[in-house]
Amino acid sequence: MASPWNPPPPADHRARRDRLRTTLADTADVVVISDLINVRYLTGFTGSNAAVLVSATDPAADRICTDGRYITQVAEQAGDLEAVIARNCLGALVEYAGRAGAVRVGFEEHIVTVAAHRDLDGALVGTSGLVERLREVKDAGEVALLRRACAVADEALAAIIERGLLAPGRTEREVARALEWEMFERGADAVSFETIVAAGANSAVPHHRPTTAVLADGDFVKIDFGAAVAGYHSDMTRTYVLGHAADWQREIYDLVSAAQSAGRAALTPGAGLRAVDGAARSVIAAAGYGDRYVHGLGHGIGLQIHEAPGIGSAAAGTLPCGAAVTVEPGVYLPGRGGVRIEDSLVVTDGEPDLLTTTDKTFTVI
Amino acid sequence: MASPWNPPPPADHRARRDRLRTTLADTADVVVISDLINVRYLTGFTGSNAAVLVSATDPAADRICTDGRYITQVAEQAGDLEAVIARNCLGALVEYAGRAGAVRVGFEEHIVTVAAHRDLDGALVGTSGLVERLREVKDAGEVALLRRACAVADEALAAIIERGLLAPGRTEREVARALEWEMFERGADAVSFETIVAAGANSAVPHHRPTTAVLADGDFVKIDFGAAVAGYHSDMTRTYVLGHAADWQREIYDLVSAAQSAGRAALTPGAGLRAVDGAARSVIAAAGYGDRYVHGLGHGIGLQIHEAPGIGSAAAGTLPCGAAVTVEPGVYLPGRGGVRIEDSLVVTDGEPDLLTTTDKTFTVI
Repeated sequence: MASPWNPPPPADHRARRDRLRTTLADTADVVVISDLINVRYLTGFTGSNAAVLVSATDPAADRICTDGRYITQVAEQAGDLEAVIARNCLGALVEYAGRAGAVRVGFEEHIVTVAAHRDLDGALVGTSGLVERLREVKDAGEVALLRRACAVADEALAAIIERGLLAPGRTEREVARALEWEMFERGADAVSFETIVAAGANSAVPHHRPTTAVLADGDFVKIDFGAAVAGYHSDMTRTYVLGHAADWQREIYDLVSAAQSAGRAALTPGAGLRAVDGAARSVIAAAGYGDRYVHGLGHGIGLQIHEAPGIGSAAAGTLPCGAAVTVEPGVYLPGRGGVRIEDSLVVTDGEPDLLTTTDKTFTVI
Repeated sequence: MASPWNPPPPADHRARRDRLRTTLADTADVVVISDLINVRYLTGFTGSNAAVLVSATDPAADRICTDGRYITQVAEQAGDLEAVIARNCLGALVEYAGRAGAVRVGFEEHIVTVAAHRDLDGALVGTSGLVERLREVKDAGEVALLRRACAVADEALAAIIERGLLAPGRTEREVARALEWEMFERGADAVSFETIVAAGANSAVPHHRPTTAVLADGDFVKIDFGAAVAGYHSDMTRTYVLGHAADWQREIYDLVSAAQSAGRAALTPGAGLRAVDGAARSVIAAAGYGDRYVHGLGHGIGLQIHEAPGIGSAAAGTLPCGAAVTVEPGVYLPGRGGVRIEDSLVVTDGEPDLLTTTDKTFTVI
């Protein structure tokens, strides 16, 4: 049922730890990474309780920690790392670091709670975003997985439209479940997030949860959804009109479409994140709808559905080459309806690489 | 398709905040709750960014905070609370507390990260588990939702067995997806966690993820799954044998079954959590399989799939009347297979209230 594809070679987790290692020298002798997504990125391990210690100088000192439930899984997924088995993984690895002679022990201060931190002994050094910054730039294998996740979503949406499931008489929930089913049929591990299907006035709610509301002729239907493939998340929004379109619908669709084009065109390496947001926002503001666009322009995608970089009016920093991001402006008219158009793209030295390929011209179904 | 039921009346979130209020007087003037599950428990709001401030003395000073994406939703779900709109909800409510004259501002030190805490101003007072302790004891409405979530799971499992889907030739993934589909058909909002279907030697992996492994005659098939209904999570494990059972399979099944009965029988108000764990564990240890039982006996269920109280060999504290918990011992023989039997129950003054009603006698399918 799904289009054929060749999965990329397995990720080189050791190379990722080596990259992290080179960032540590001035800060810490070792760092204990306890965010589970970061652990997955650095080791391949997907269990629900884990931490990994990376040494600034000695790869042989690296350790992964998980608990007794995952003894088999950790050997399969991260067999290149010696494992410590304990319930409190952060505590166990900080202790191990002390025994191994580390003086400055880094921890993720944006992840570790105040309470967990108080229970740790040793000369702790707060670090923030070390692994998240590495994750911002995708390698070829990661882009291949994101491209596949986006293709799964593209094909699933095409399938439900072709099967006539996006039509008056269906409920939002039915459409959402049919879409999710099609993504699983095509090899999704999971949905990227709770699928949004928002019809009629509900489309004016940016993050509407599907209800038993019935789709009707003349409705906007806004669909925001994604598939996860091998842990990598796609994200796409399309907005359609059912049956017959009114002038106001065409007008705000064209406006959002123009803003989205401007946002995509602004995706160049080194561009300021605020400037990218502004490129799209200014189009909407100039048309007088600035106060109907109530969120940021986009966000990074990868092992998380929302990750760095965030693209918004208060964002700091710039867009690196190789970042995978969404561009998703919207205009929402409470009580009437709303439009959002969203793609996932990778920033390159040339044109951005468009991962979500579903047509986005104004379409009446 | 689903059995009929009457949803309970809406939760009384104000009453929950009042209970929290009464616990504050000696500790703090206000507390800012930023854990999203706790926010949902106290307000009904289900958005992805929020915090709630509860005053020790003045209900009219209570505030909820969320960002611009959720203006409509917060009015619908938590219309009894005045809303502050901001991106950084914790920071905005701590600031509001200061302006409102609060001197001692409580925060959740087991939730707030070291980095977020450093960015807050004011006389902050760390609190830990205030709301989690309230959540440990379920009210009648919560028990009704848990019972419904368990019934959805019971019915879904019965449906796939009746349809002949739990049979040699199917893959673990196919079984998992069929089961999930049946839960959604019966009104599940979501699955409680990634469904575990583990066949043959895979059943010896406590938390196995379903693969394309094909079920075969003579396999153990271990199924650990749950449905979420209105945010409340069921959790159940059943282990079957396909086709023909061997003596060793019957032997370890009977052992786990005896341990599970002992664990259920130990669920009485005031029982020590470690003693409840020991009641089941001692049965397995006495048979010489103590080292093949590598996890705790159970955990609370509710708005989270894992919540207080945890029932394990290192647990402190006692079991309150009204707690909803799982009882799930297992024995795992690497390379051969494993058995886990798990129910969800509510602790009462009499017999525990069994929410998962699927038969658990030794069954060859």
